Amino acid sequence: MDSKMSRSERVAYMTARLVANPSRLFGLGDFAEELGVARSTVSEDFSLIRGALACGGGGVKTLPGAAGGVMYKPRPSAEQLEMIRMDLAVELARPERVLPGGFLYMTDLIFSPQWSEAFGSYFASLFEPLSADAVVTIETKGIPLALMTARGLGRPLVIIRRNSRVTEGSSVSINYVSGSSSRIQTMSLPRRALEPGSKVVVVDDFLRGGGTVSGAADLLAEFDVEVLGTGVVAATEEPREKLLKDYISLVEIGRTSDGAARVRCNAPDLPGSD
Amino acid sequence: MDSKMSRSERVAYMTARLVANPSRLFGLGDFAEELGVARSTVSEDFSLIRGALACGGGGVKTLPGAAGGVMYKPRPSAEQLEMIRMDLAVELARPERVLPGGFLYMTDLIFSPQWSEAFGSYFASLFEPLSADAVVTIETKGIPLALMTARGLGRPLVIIRRNSRVTEGSSVSINYVSGSSSRIQTMSLPRRALEPGSKVVVVDDFLRGGGTVSGAADLLAEFDVEVLGTGVVAATEEPREKLLKDYISLVEIGRTSDGAARVRCNAPDLPGSD
Repeated sequence: MDSKMSRSERVAYMTARLVANPSRLFGLGDFAEELGVARSTVSEDFSLIRGALACGGGGVKTLPGAAGGVMYKPRPSAEQLEMIRMDLAVELARPERVLPGGFLYMTDLIFSPQWSEAFGSYFASLFEPLSADAVVTIETKGIPLALMTARGLGRPLVIIRRNSRVTEGSSVSINYVSGSSSRIQTMSLPRRALEPGSKVVVVDDFLRGGGTVSGAADLLAEFDVEVLGTGVVAATEEPREKLLKDYISLVEIGRTSDGAARVRCNAPDLPGSD
Repeated sequence: MDSKMSRSERVAYMTARLVANPSRLFGLGDFAEELGVARSTVSEDFSLIRGALACGGGGVKTLPGAAGGVMYKPRPSAEQLEMIRMDLAVELARPERVLPGGFLYMTDLIFSPQWSEAFGSYFASLFEPLSADAVVTIETKGIPLALMTARGLGRPLVIIRRNSRVTEGSSVSINYVSGSSSRIQTMSLPRRALEPGSKVVVVDDFLRGGGTVSGAADLLAEFDVEVLGTGVVAATEEPREKLLKDYISLVEIGRTSDGAARVRCNAPDLPGSD
């Protein structure tokens, strides 16, 4: 490393390292040694970075003490969070998204790196105060946004599978009734995936009756794991009565009187609110 | 935006925006307007950022012209790429990963935000020169690393499902024989997912016989889509004869004479090489 770096160069280097590794703790001493400057210089650089990033949807968090350091948390402002929901509502309202049967084609959004990052930063912001140990989703469509939520929170991702696999050791499985299809389905999780007593948040792409997400909560209870909060990208207005009471959805999808899909932005709920 | 930002503050702000949005093009003029400085000043700032990031595993790419701008590409050095493979081999060799039946437990790595980001930056680096239109994987375990590969390349992610869904419109399905289980399985892809004539790269977590990945290539051929390259995190030494000739794997998993798993780092292959 070139010890002759200017302040601006150090700032660029450190900002890139922080932002590329959200929620990872970097020791001041490590940067000081790496860049060949005093700890106090690094500390001043971080104050500057924190100030400059405060208006850009990210926060630099300082942990004091000998074991302390700094970490980057992608934290959109309330305005930016609102914008994610508005943009999504506009995108979902495009007429070419309506499929035969009145379904909305959302797969391209759900699988897109940009959108899943936006959804992930949304849920990471909302769930940060809950201090969950892990982020849980149910395969398949929830995985990209759950990965980005886990990345934003700096927590592991746990994926509940539809079947147990011999390659994952002993598993716990449960049967549940899917709210949308009224069919009995199976979900399972390897014993190794979660410590008993953990607390988690659950995220998924879509919520209709709530059968899948409440099934996940039942399965997690078998592991002595508590669900602190649940977030979905889109929930349907019908049925009004869901198997799950507390959840956050970015948008709600209903129908107009002529059967067309109608997308509505929700008021920004807080975790645990009804 | 405060127009009184110092150069270091501007550099922190712009670096964070770039690194948080890999492969996204930012116009010089946009930043100039947003920060209240001249285009030439922004251009100088970027030269400085490019220089500072060159040693940190990232590159700032400048696209000239009126429609041009700058983008960040997460590009680990050859040394960093080598380190990812070495770290993985060490991690996989831990004895507690061996499951009954001699399987290796890899799920925690495959689903981890940090590891999937490392795998994604690995494959994004290797596949960048191929200029693929999209990144394709087969559900489920390949999704996290495929998402991070797609993010690094700035391309959409396409996920082949095990069954077609009514909520995704018309789909194309094929049957194939899984190399490991010798069972007939189905995979399917919605018509909307890919444009005919597209060129893609395929990534997955694990390759044993190659049946799944070569089945994916067959399905993609039905869309008139060409596979330019294939990457997997781990491949087994046996069977030697795979259904697929050209692929890149980070590590190879074999067995010692007493049946224990043996993990080997591969020489860094290049796309298209045997």
